[in-house]
Amino acid sequence: MDEALPSWNEGSARQAVLDFVNRSSTPGDGYLEPAERVATFDNDGTLWIEQPLPVQLDFIFRALAAAARSDSSLAETQPYKAILEQDHDFFAAVGQQKPEAMMALEEALARTWHGARPHEFDAEVLRYLDTTKSERFDKPYTELLYKPMLELFDLLRENDFRIFVCSGGGRDFMRVTAESAWGLNREDVIGTAPQYEYKDGELYRTDKVLGGIALGPGKPEHIFATTGRLPAFAGGNADVDIEMLESARFSILVVHDDEEREFAYTAAAEKSVAAAERHGWTLVSMKDDWKVVF
Amino acid sequence: MDEALPSWNEGSARQAVLDFVNRSSTPGDGYLEPAERVATFDNDGTLWIEQPLPVQLDFIFRALAAAARSDSSLAETQPYKAILEQDHDFFAAVGQQKPEAMMALEEALARTWHGARPHEFDAEVLRYLDTTKSERFDKPYTELLYKPMLELFDLLRENDFRIFVCSGGGRDFMRVTAESAWGLNREDVIGTAPQYEYKDGELYRTDKVLGGIALGPGKPEHIFATTGRLPAFAGGNADVDIEMLESARFSILVVHDDEEREFAYTAAAEKSVAAAERHGWTLVSMKDDWKVVF
Repeated sequence: MDEALPSWNEGSARQAVLDFVNRSSTPGDGYLEPAERVATFDNDGTLWIEQPLPVQLDFIFRALAAAARSDSSLAETQPYKAILEQDHDFFAAVGQQKPEAMMALEEALARTWHGARPHEFDAEVLRYLDTTKSERFDKPYTELLYKPMLELFDLLRENDFRIFVCSGGGRDFMRVTAESAWGLNREDVIGTAPQYEYKDGELYRTDKVLGGIALGPGKPEHIFATTGRLPAFAGGNADVDIEMLESARFSILVVHDDEEREFAYTAAAEKSVAAAERHGWTLVSMKDDWKVVF
Repeated sequence: MDEALPSWNEGSARQAVLDFVNRSSTPGDGYLEPAERVATFDNDGTLWIEQPLPVQLDFIFRALAAAARSDSSLAETQPYKAILEQDHDFFAAVGQQKPEAMMALEEALARTWHGARPHEFDAEVLRYLDTTKSERFDKPYTELLYKPMLELFDLLRENDFRIFVCSGGGRDFMRVTAESAWGLNREDVIGTAPQYEYKDGELYRTDKVLGGIALGPGKPEHIFATTGRLPAFAGGNADVDIEMLESARFSILVVHDDEEREFAYTAAAEKSVAAAERHGWTLVSMKDDWKVVF
């Protein structure tokens, strides 16, 4: 295991991760049956950048702005009005994934893609990802995954952990790139999602959200619904990840403290840092614990 | 592949299965990328016996009868009344998994286990399975899995298919035995299921059904919700499996025509046999295609 996590600096975070994985897969204290080795990760801010806005939200805002421009009756209602007017408070609430703002957004989304078939939605996501870049890094978002986290995936896989991504942002958005980004199958992606209806041999999006928003308590709820377990290992970076991290045997919290190589911010993560100290979760400083970010 | 499916007689059914699996995993016509190799199976009547009643239903009826006996206000309402009175029409409707009867049952179930935590429900299922036998075979149900289907699982796994069980009967019931019965993980089991609520570090059953009943169109809906795909390979045995079988590239329909070794019945499977002929699904005769059943 010495060669594992090559992009991580030696230190207490790397060591805590190696120790937990080693203990879980070695007969003795802390051993976990392979069936129990479920690892779950938040996506935005944990596996790739989420500034200035989580990527799915940028995708969604563009779609909703386009909808409001082509149907002026929408332009006066929320969340369209806030999006068109670039309302700072609304963006902040959504950027911090506040459940109420997220739910308003989900409802607007449900309307926008009502009746869409999976391949139609997938094509829109691919077009967006192919044509959109992070301004700060001048690169497509799919090139802005955190390399140390991909190495952590490798380490977990080598030790027979099964990896799931669980995000409030949108299950179907992430599924489009699950294979190429993470080497995961679509079924390994959990998250806020519309319910689909099967009719005459095809699936169509309904306007219902399946099982609620995957934020806060919604994360362990979605994880249990999919896996029948709570996680052995969990990783997150924000207040909306607290319940997931709390439900796991071992948890890491990624701290965005690297202005130079990524971003430095604490908004929407204040409570999670306090919870990490209380529960003994492993804090991962991007600045100190990672040799490279991307 | 010649040694695959040893409990299957040589014949067109075995050959069709081998041909499809071979074609899917060999570059050329019909090749499927590994990510697409999703196989889904109904449980009751496809992987184990479902007579005189699907096993989960027997479990459920006993629990509801016990609830009605301890709360007389329930005894006069449905479905408790029908269960206590052994109402033949109700049992027939449920035995055939008619959606309305199943929904009434789900609502009663939701009440019965409202607030239960997963380990409590699991313990009840284990106690039931440990103490209940099939009258006909004088064996626990867990010993009445169809051996030829377990061999089919082996063949599919060897060819990098990922296997999921999708059943109307009850996701959480099946998850208890998924590992020991099928060598599957809990996350590979899909089906009708309650929604859980996460509170103070624990999960509790709510009285809501998550994403509707997994019967008829509900099967491909649940399969897509979990896997992000429709199946490449599907297996079923009843009318409530038609939409799942129709949504797959290759489908088999198990026909119960073996009075001597298992049961012979066509109830609730008449339409599926007609659909099999129309769509070219592979009919699997338990009597002719299987050397042994258990």
